[in-house]
Amino acid sequence: MSIRVGIVGYGNLSRGVESAIRQNPDLELVAVFTRRDPSALKIKTAGVPVCSVDDLENWKEKIDVLVLGGGSATDLPEQTPKYAQWFNVVDSFDTHAKIPAHFANVDEAARKSGHVGIISVGWDPGMFSLIRMVSTSVLPEGSNYTFWGRGVSQGHSDAIRRIPGVKDARQYTVPVEASVESVRRGENPELTTRQMHTRECYVVAEEGADLAQIEKQIKEMPNYFADYDTTVHFISQEELNEKHGGLPHGGFVLRSGVTGFDKENKHIVEYRLQLDSNPEFTGSVIAAYVRAAYKLNKEGQTGCKTVFDIAPIYLSPESPDEVRAHLL
Amino acid sequence: MSIRVGIVGYGNLSRGVESAIRQNPDLELVAVFTRRDPSALKIKTAGVPVCSVDDLENWKEKIDVLVLGGGSATDLPEQTPKYAQWFNVVDSFDTHAKIPAHFANVDEAARKSGHVGIISVGWDPGMFSLIRMVSTSVLPEGSNYTFWGRGVSQGHSDAIRRIPGVKDARQYTVPVEASVESVRRGENPELTTRQMHTRECYVVAEEGADLAQIEKQIKEMPNYFADYDTTVHFISQEELNEKHGGLPHGGFVLRSGVTGFDKENKHIVEYRLQLDSNPEFTGSVIAAYVRAAYKLNKEGQTGCKTVFDIAPIYLSPESPDEVRAHLL
Repeated sequence: MSIRVGIVGYGNLSRGVESAIRQNPDLELVAVFTRRDPSALKIKTAGVPVCSVDDLENWKEKIDVLVLGGGSATDLPEQTPKYAQWFNVVDSFDTHAKIPAHFANVDEAARKSGHVGIISVGWDPGMFSLIRMVSTSVLPEGSNYTFWGRGVSQGHSDAIRRIPGVKDARQYTVPVEASVESVRRGENPELTTRQMHTRECYVVAEEGADLAQIEKQIKEMPNYFADYDTTVHFISQEELNEKHGGLPHGGFVLRSGVTGFDKENKHIVEYRLQLDSNPEFTGSVIAAYVRAAYKLNKEGQTGCKTVFDIAPIYLSPESPDEVRAHLL
Repeated sequence: MSIRVGIVGYGNLSRGVESAIRQNPDLELVAVFTRRDPSALKIKTAGVPVCSVDDLENWKEKIDVLVLGGGSATDLPEQTPKYAQWFNVVDSFDTHAKIPAHFANVDEAARKSGHVGIISVGWDPGMFSLIRMVSTSVLPEGSNYTFWGRGVSQGHSDAIRRIPGVKDARQYTVPVEASVESVRRGENPELTTRQMHTRECYVVAEEGADLAQIEKQIKEMPNYFADYDTTVHFISQEELNEKHGGLPHGGFVLRSGVTGFDKENKHIVEYRLQLDSNPEFTGSVIAAYVRAAYKLNKEGQTGCKTVFDIAPIYLSPESPDEVRAHLL
């Protein structure tokens, strides 16, 4: 019998989860839930119903784990605790500063209802967090470095699109290779924001727009661009669609630490992701943690969990004996 | 109150554990145990007694976790189950084919006595296993690649030293960079043994030894060298001591996988270690799992565990709240 999965929302991430479910024979998509008119939404998996989120309570006995595909700004703070009263839930909440509050809310709801809620699943937070945490525990004297990219930042792309005169835009976050190399050599550099990443913007302007003014507004935008070396390229909509249609991403987590009675030995731990599709990889991580949520709850566990709280064995469809025999 | 740790044996690995304990304020070394004459062994940590392994049973109430620093061939198969009757134990058993049997023996002893035994802790098996397993769960359709080096293989160095006419030797395992690059590009190559690693040997010959004969014996040695491109350099003992005195190691674990409705997107997960000191890094991993063994047993858990069975949070000296706030 497979694990019955529901998905709330049908944006990029939800479609990534839908795709990942097909690659995991022990998972089965049973319904997608939308806040809009269900009849207007066509999903890729044949035979699976699209329902209204208002129906969710009626699916209590028909779904083992509900994945919340929404955004961290407004969707998840409300949805994850709400649906944890009826389901085991998994989300990808990624507003780092608000994780403690979100954790507390989900924990309370999930404990009360006897479910498991796994929050902040993906690659950062998620896989990168796991590496940072394990590496920090193994090498307690050292420094962590996280570089993102080369990849599309949807938040930064959106920020550019809000500038008057901009029709469309795509922003790439790019790690500064010289800084990555310095960390790899064990030099423990202190890096400013500018020394860690550059930002490349591909912008489609409306006809007659003041390009110099748009470029200035991008480069001076606080938080998003002002602290970075930013380059702006104006291109046509056709070129944007053709060359910048994907959502690649990735990055590096490095820990540089020392050991020895005189701290004489250096060690570098590096974890790198190169992802053709950010939402599909994130969806794949979520699929593995859907399995974990199901197994943990079957064992009687309840409450909110993060990647830190879950033993790796729960992610695998194989038995502990099999995994020990061929992956240890 | 700190976690009281004992170490059995005082070879390279045990000294690595001793060094790591100093970097973890919540761990305290309380005794080192030897099979030889304790009065002949001087350890680096002042004030800590050296005792005979025959006394171990008397330390039952004075040690929280016992680390077994011995070898996988003969020491650990006997010692780990034996000492699990009195202590929580951690070892670095690394004979992959014999892990299931070792697991079963330690599990039986540890369950019976109410202790936790964590086996096969280090970087491979250990950290590399963790990455292979998590990455395989996240990207179920793909291939795993493990490259070791550049680093000293003690087993291969020993094999060379057993050849008549050889006074001393050091062997480096070196990953074939072109193969690593091909995996990184997502080409999913099928690699032979020869295409994955080369072997570099630095050999000190006895005076008057037949160098051509030694080189031939190394290069034709089955299992160890015959399947590899092997280079042999004859050098002086002084040069060996000066340039090849360390025990650096490291390597790469890569998983190359696909996602998408048409499997159209590639993803590469890469984990890389560059270690100045193999035994000190291994000792540092063990120190983190010593903490885990202690915490798990405090919670009432018993039996044999591997890195797959332990939630990352147990490795950290920090509280779950702290870790969530700054590492997630």
